[in-house]
Amino acid sequence: MTKGGKDQMSEKVIRAIQDDYADDYAWCYGCGRLNKEGYHLRTGWDGEQTVTIYQPRPEHMAIPGFVYGGLIASVIDCHGTGSASLALHRKNGYEPGEGIEPPRFVTASLHVDFIKPTPHDIPLKAVGTIEEIHPKKWKIHTKVFADDVCCAKGEVVAAVMPKTFAQG
Amino acid sequence: MTKGGKDQMSEKVIRAIQDDYADDYAWCYGCGRLNKEGYHLRTGWDGEQTVTIYQPRPEHMAIPGFVYGGLIASVIDCHGTGSASLALHRKNGYEPGEGIEPPRFVTASLHVDFIKPTPHDIPLKAVGTIEEIHPKKWKIHTKVFADDVCCAKGEVVAAVMPKTFAQG
Repeated sequence: MTKGGKDQMSEKVIRAIQDDYADDYAWCYGCGRLNKEGYHLRTGWDGEQTVTIYQPRPEHMAIPGFVYGGLIASVIDCHGTGSASLALHRKNGYEPGEGIEPPRFVTASLHVDFIKPTPHDIPLKAVGTIEEIHPKKWKIHTKVFADDVCCAKGEVVAAVMPKTFAQG
Repeated sequence: MTKGGKDQMSEKVIRAIQDDYADDYAWCYGCGRLNKEGYHLRTGWDGEQTVTIYQPRPEHMAIPGFVYGGLIASVIDCHGTGSASLALHRKNGYEPGEGIEPPRFVTASLHVDFIKPTPHDIPLKAVGTIEEIHPKKWKIHTKVFADDVCCAKGEVVAAVMPKTFAQG
């Protein structure tokens, strides 16, 4: 399992799957590049694992000094759908940055175990391990690190976006 | 189980437990009344159940027309800690609005099942049922309604805030 650590915290995800989402599906508050107010979470490969890095905003506190749990849940959520998209895209023969529109996933379920209070002043690094449970349904096991401390663990079941979602 | 519905959606929580949190613990991005940028979630009793009502901001979308899952998770999270605080406060003989500082909880775990795409243009209503699993640990079962449609179900295990948290 890749850990965090100060050196890795200065990493940036170079080729993120969200950069290739179709414009119609790039509005998510968590990970949509077109949502001006959003977090712009970006998820890429690190070998066989996936990585999302995010610096919480000053206001994202639970109490002063510690990150708000809802933000951690949000990072795990979008990291999960992004990871599933990366995985199915790779299974289909593609990598991010190749200009091919990847499949877009939605979250069926989200679970978070908050292990330790999460310090607020350093970037969070979510590291995901992907499990295919069906061609259209993937499970992503995620650990969230602040420096090299694992502060939360998450599990997302992500499903290919159903047509009903796009009819809104 | 209390449902949502248009009439109830115009409800407002009158006496919220978050109004009574000590100033030091009123900074949460989700439910802290002192966090200027936050959601200001407010949780109160409705009989033996608890209620939190929130109108998502325009930017809180997954795709246009539907609410971003991370926000739903955040509502369930703070609704859970607020509900646990209400429950232990009541067990101790107090109700919100009596000027007594309630116990402050943190989230140990959060689970969300996203059942249906959640429409963006109406307030969300979280309705919680509380289960005591230990004097300092409570489980909150929550349904999130948009109008009278249950769009998500959640489960939070909330624990009395440990001293380590306040030493940040």
